[in-house]
Amino acid sequence: MRENTVRSKLSGGGMVVNGWLQIPSSFSAEIMAHQGFDSLVIDMQHGLIDYQIAVTMLQAISTTTTIPLVRVPWNEPASIMKMLDAGAYGIICPMINSRQEAEQLVRSCKYAPKGNRSFGPIRASLYAGSDYAQHANDTVIVMPMIETKEALENIDEILGTPGVDGAYVGPADLSLTLGCTPQVDQTEEPVVKALETILAACKRHKVIPGLHNASSSYALKMAAKGWQFVTLASDSRYLAARASEELSAMESENRPLLLKSY
Amino acid sequence: MRENTVRSKLSGGGMVVNGWLQIPSSFSAEIMAHQGFDSLVIDMQHGLIDYQIAVTMLQAISTTTTIPLVRVPWNEPASIMKMLDAGAYGIICPMINSRQEAEQLVRSCKYAPKGNRSFGPIRASLYAGSDYAQHANDTVIVMPMIETKEALENIDEILGTPGVDGAYVGPADLSLTLGCTPQVDQTEEPVVKALETILAACKRHKVIPGLHNASSSYALKMAAKGWQFVTLASDSRYLAARASEELSAMESENRPLLLKSY
Amino acid sequence: MRENTVRSKLSGGGMVVNGWLQIPSSFSAEIMAHQGFDSLVIDMQHGLIDYQIAVTMLQAISTTTTIPLVRVPWNEPASIMKMLDAGAYGIICPMINSRQEAEQLVRSCKYAPKGNRSFGPIRASLYAGSDYAQHANDTVIVMPMIETKEALENIDEILGTPGVDGAYVGPADLSLTLGCTPQVDQTEEPVVKALETILAACKRHKVIPGLHNASSSYALKMAAKGWQFVTLASDSRYLAARASEELSAMESENRPLLLKSY
Amino acid sequence: MRENTVRSKLSGGGMVVNGWLQIPSSFSAEIMAHQGFDSLVIDMQHGLIDYQIAVTMLQAISTTTTIPLVRVPWNEPASIMKMLDAGAYGIICPMINSRQEAEQLVRSCKYAPKGNRSFGPIRASLYAGSDYAQHANDTVIVMPMIETKEALENIDEILGTPGVDGAYVGPADLSLTLGCTPQVDQTEEPVVKALETILAACKRHKVIPGLHNASSSYALKMAAKGWQFVTLASDSRYLAARASEELSAMESENRPLLLKSY
Amino acid sequence: MRENTVRSKLSGGGMVVNGWLQIPSSFSAEIMAHQGFDSLVIDMQHGLIDYQIAVTMLQAISTTTTIPLVRVPWNEPASIMKMLDAGAYGIICPMINSRQEAEQLVRSCKYAPKGNRSFGPIRASLYAGSDYAQHANDTVIVMPMIETKEALENIDEILGTPGVDGAYVGPADLSLTLGCTPQVDQTEEPVVKALETILAACKRHKVIPGLHNASSSYALKMAAKGWQFVTLASDSRYLAARASEELSAMESENRPLLLKSY
Amino acid sequence: MRENTVRSKLSGGGMVVNGWLQIPSSFSAEIMAHQGFDSLVIDMQHGLIDYQIAVTMLQAISTTTTIPLVRVPWNEPASIMKMLDAGAYGIICPMINSRQEAEQLVRSCKYAPKGNRSFGPIRASLYAGSDYAQHANDTVIVMPMIETKEALENIDEILGTPGVDGAYVGPADLSLTLGCTPQVDQTEEPVVKALETILAACKRHKVIPGLHNASSSYALKMAAKGWQFVTLASDSRYLAARASEELSAMESENRPLLLKSY
Repeated sequence: MRENTVRSKLSGGGMVVNGWLQIPSSFSAEIMAHQGFDSLVIDMQHGLIDYQIAVTMLQAISTTTTIPLVRVPWNEPASIMKMLDAGAYGIICPMINSRQEAEQLVRSCKYAPKGNRSFGPIRASLYAGSDYAQHANDTVIVMPMIETKEALENIDEILGTPGVDGAYVGPADLSLTLGCTPQVDQTEEPVVKALETILAACKRHKVIPGLHNASSSYALKMAAKGWQFVTLASDSRYLAARASEELSAMESENRPLLLKSY
Repeated sequence: MRENTVRSKLSGGGMVVNGWLQIPSSFSAEIMAHQGFDSLVIDMQHGLIDYQIAVTMLQAISTTTTIPLVRVPWNEPASIMKMLDAGAYGIICPMINSRQEAEQLVRSCKYAPKGNRSFGPIRASLYAGSDYAQHANDTVIVMPMIETKEALENIDEILGTPGVDGAYVGPADLSLTLGCTPQVDQTEEPVVKALETILAACKRHKVIPGLHNASSSYALKMAAKGWQFVTLASDSRYLAARASEELSAMESENRPLLLKSY
Repeated sequence: MRENTVRSKLSGGGMVVNGWLQIPSSFSAEIMAHQGFDSLVIDMQHGLIDYQIAVTMLQAISTTTTIPLVRVPWNEPASIMKMLDAGAYGIICPMINSRQEAEQLVRSCKYAPKGNRSFGPIRASLYAGSDYAQHANDTVIVMPMIETKEALENIDEILGTPGVDGAYVGPADLSLTLGCTPQVDQTEEPVVKALETILAACKRHKVIPGLHNASSSYALKMAAKGWQFVTLASDSRYLAARASEELSAMESENRPLLLKSY
Repeated sequence: MRENTVRSKLSGGGMVVNGWLQIPSSFSAEIMAHQGFDSLVIDMQHGLIDYQIAVTMLQAISTTTTIPLVRVPWNEPASIMKMLDAGAYGIICPMINSRQEAEQLVRSCKYAPKGNRSFGPIRASLYAGSDYAQHANDTVIVMPMIETKEALENIDEILGTPGVDGAYVGPADLSLTLGCTPQVDQTEEPVVKALETILAACKRHKVIPGLHNASSSYALKMAAKGWQFVTLASDSRYLAARASEELSAMESENRPLLLKSY
Repeated sequence: MRENTVRSKLSGGGMVVNGWLQIPSSFSAEIMAHQGFDSLVIDMQHGLIDYQIAVTMLQAISTTTTIPLVRVPWNEPASIMKMLDAGAYGIICPMINSRQEAEQLVRSCKYAPKGNRSFGPIRASLYAGSDYAQHANDTVIVMPMIETKEALENIDEILGTPGVDGAYVGPADLSLTLGCTPQVDQTEEPVVKALETILAACKRHKVIPGLHNASSSYALKMAAKGWQFVTLASDSRYLAARASEELSAMESENRPLLLKSY
Repeated sequence: MRENTVRSKLSGGGMVVNGWLQIPSSFSAEIMAHQGFDSLVIDMQHGLIDYQIAVTMLQAISTTTTIPLVRVPWNEPASIMKMLDAGAYGIICPMINSRQEAEQLVRSCKYAPKGNRSFGPIRASLYAGSDYAQHANDTVIVMPMIETKEALENIDEILGTPGVDGAYVGPADLSLTLGCTPQVDQTEEPVVKALETILAACKRHKVIPGLHNASSSYALKMAAKGWQFVTLASDSRYLAARASEELSAMESENRPLLLKSY
């Protein structure tokens, strides 16, 4: 079976730099896959991406050695299993708040006897190899998202669930439930403390600490603290940011007023 | 009929900052449309974009006041007329090298008696208004691309063709036919001279001088010389450039080697 | 944040005329949006419409000032949250039969602390504005469908749920569970009485009474009784009805038999 | 090979009532196919329809006995042959203005020795039967559009071209080139006279006179004059017309002002 | 209402040969539909198929008399009801392990009072006829999948559930939960015994015994034992198998080494 | 630049076994790419494949080392250049009957000064590498189809055109123009002789002799005669053939009558 290099890099104590896809296009995915990210997450929760186009994005990523991961929209067996069959090498699942939810997530990701994933790795066996069935349970990464106050309280039960490989933190949702501003690259105290709590719990449970960031500068700081799986901003952010900067540069003295659309 | 603000800004001597779409997605198009470009070109020649998805991109642009333009893949009546019917407010057409080709381009863009555009503005009349038929010939912009040695030689015949509103220069192709490196933001002598020739011809014929650029810095320099319709880099460039920069920033001392895909 | 004019019109005691989309096409959606409906519902339950094409329909509607609403297929967090992120300004949810189901629906539509909607308004913030996060909870409309005998019995508990903005009645399903013919524009006694019950409950709880109709004549009668949010027939109905009428007109004496397909 | 009932009805002197598809959707096509039209034209010129979705529309029509025809965007071999391979039972081709153009059109529609259509009826042989190769040349209908002043002048040369089965008149374009208002259901004198000229020429050459109409009332009048292949309005017209009527009906005294979008 | 010939053939004691679709394409579906299968299952669980393309596949199958069935991804009301509305004549549902789950499945497939299926057979009424509402409950086939150890233990409770028409066995999943190799055409003892148990239970409950097979040879053996609804291999298997055989044939002496991709 | 292994194998005197794609699906393309073909042709002429889905098929093939080629629908610059920009490593072009047509084909495939291909290898440079511009002219394969009587007569002029890399024979069209049955794996005398003529001409001009076949047995015979680039049957043929065989095997004594659809 094709190696999951994200798993091997992390288990060796290394860092993984992850990219984030929210534009529904196999071409933008292929561009991103050629930039050199260790892994790319197809965001099917907040990205404008549904199943059929996600499959073409998985194919686009597979033209490179970048590892394809998926954030599913919710902790539902159907969408999780479909994305694994399509070749995702890891599942990030939002809003895991309890041991029970973590166990259900793991079950959806693992074949019996560890779970109840249904067998039919239709594209996964093309991508991974014909021995997919034997190794899938040990290769696919399972990362519940820790992003609520409730999850914080149940952090040990969640991270101690057999089959859980890490914690992925969504700072915006975490901020909301802690009464802070919903944003990434947080510096507000309650969130900063919560992040420390989660990081410590990950170390305690020997699972991957993963964090969603909006900039390389913040990501580097967090990596220095021990976060191993760090995401930079999404493709849609990159696009908007760069276009906006270039447009601002055009607003010279002799052309002060740019048309503001909407 | 909805005003073509690109035309009015340019006829007032102003500059138009144009964006360029090569990713086949109505969402990336909508993001770009919200950044504040005066106009956006859907590039159906070198962009990975076909008719059906181009229509959804026109719709996405229409959610803002940014003016939608199209670069067609070739000087063919079918694709030109279909994009106009879909609501394009201007056509940029590659490889116009002679008076005859310029006249054919104009004919495809104009209703009788000025041309042979077939009548059926199915979406254009939604976008532009029910009086589209009366004003389309005067509203839609027609810009042949000047991008070969042959076109340079025939520049006066081309730009003097009734109905031609401007010249759009593709520096990469122009470079190739002049024996230079195929690239944008050119500084090689033969291309620089050719650009001056074209700019002068535009002024002489009182048509819009339009130029494809790769950066705001180069675009500003060219605008200062008199280029009025200036394009910045494409969405796919923005995406690749920003992602690449962010990844480079992650290559700190303690993580010198990033996985290079492919 | 862009105003939700449906909410403002209704809160002023006015009527909202709503259209209904079941054809999976951004073009038919754009045509409908240009007719002058106050709002349009993309029907993802019985319409032949899935997520990816629904997004392009939201974009098409956004080319006008018509307010985009969505009927989701079921009371599931994933599909509700995805459509809100995509820019829906209201959710109509089928088969809400109890207080518990109503509360779950509200939670999926509201950010903490009022609910557990996950944060990531990727397209919503383009459509609504950059202050979406602050105002979304008060702008987005939440309308459970009252369409079963059980819901009738629990009507006060459902409509009294904090965050519920109205009741939307699906007469066909309501008819079925009351032992009547599954149809719209109902005149059968048990359904007529049930409608009166629901209308009275809406007034009592000061929430919007909404009704699905098949014709303007019936809708006008119901509006006169106090129904404020009235839907006319769907795009697919309009298409079939008008084509059928025109074909019938062609069956003159000298051409009595038209080919009947299937 | 499956019979082309349009051909048999017309050759028997009968009338064919044709429908017109401009919405890019296999579902709206299937709805139209179930209304009872003798044939349906997928309009790939002015309709918002490209190849890939046209194929699904051909499949949708094939669920009934309605005969599928296609209006191609232009007189180009590639698009004509692709649509025939996909199962179109007739080609309507715009802007045929001379004998030479008519001959080229016929060549694209016929296998050697009558033409240069390339062999590969990939879906046509599913739809028509395995003996497609033997009968296609005699089954597929070829209808050049007569819609310009120039075509009027060359009418006998065009209609006398071997392989031409009829003339299809596009009144809007014809009007434009005759200096009249571009519209259907014409009553302006020059167009009315031109229509008579074309009808007479069709009778003289024993080919099908076909006319694009906007209403059954006009179509009936023209059928009475001898037009055999009559088209009613398009799906997009039906949709807009019916929705608009229903909305107007809602503008009662107590709700005089409807929001006008755009 | 159009007859469900699968039901009538089976109730007469006959065998039904079923095909299996996993390629997301209306064209491959149409090819399969023309081969002569009694029915075709669109596999939305392990096939790479989502809702929107499944609809076009239903249309493709409807061009023939082959009966369209659907395997849904999971026992969820939303996806089951959407596929029924789109015209599926039967639902195969994975992982039904208890009476409770079987009852929920039946409820999703039946209108009140037998279930809680919501009314709106938008395409189903085109395919089946305008009397769909009256006959749907008796026409649509409901087949839970028996594919776990737990389901085996609850076999009588599941098959005895009113509204259940049969049992469909997925041998790969059944194998996994019995500690065997996940494969079809099983000969391992525990699975063989389990298949006998299920077959006997089907006979006892007078419901259809259905089995997923990988070859006609195995299917024939199982049919001889009494399995009435037998599936052959999927379209994707056929494609891979035939291509692979032909390539092997090309490996003659003078070309021993074929490029092995990946 | 990524090596074109088809070119290197052939120039070494070896044989290339080519596959043929007519199903519009990136998944079926990926399955085919994993079987071990040296190259795969996306057939945009007779296959049911348009530009946008062809791009995803190119991506699917790029997940393996199989070389992606394209048969364009016609000798038109627009479609040829778009497919090259999308990453095709070779163009097979139908109906090249004269020196003039061959020269136009070459021009569309080569950058100046050898041709007039426009510069913008948007996806090609991802697939091939950033030095695409320097090597594309020498890497991309240009194969005109020899498939008419006229082409036979001009065979030396066509194959002697600078830039032409080979001849690809379409036996069905060749048969038609020679008055034979339109089929592949031909044994009719006039076609057999024509094939010998073409093969000899290829050897004389030192270009690749390429042949479309329907079976490995025929392909092997032709390879033995010296045909170097041999195609086996298409994906759609494989699918239909294997399904049909399996269904025939099910027609045992106790089930003599299979439903014949259509």
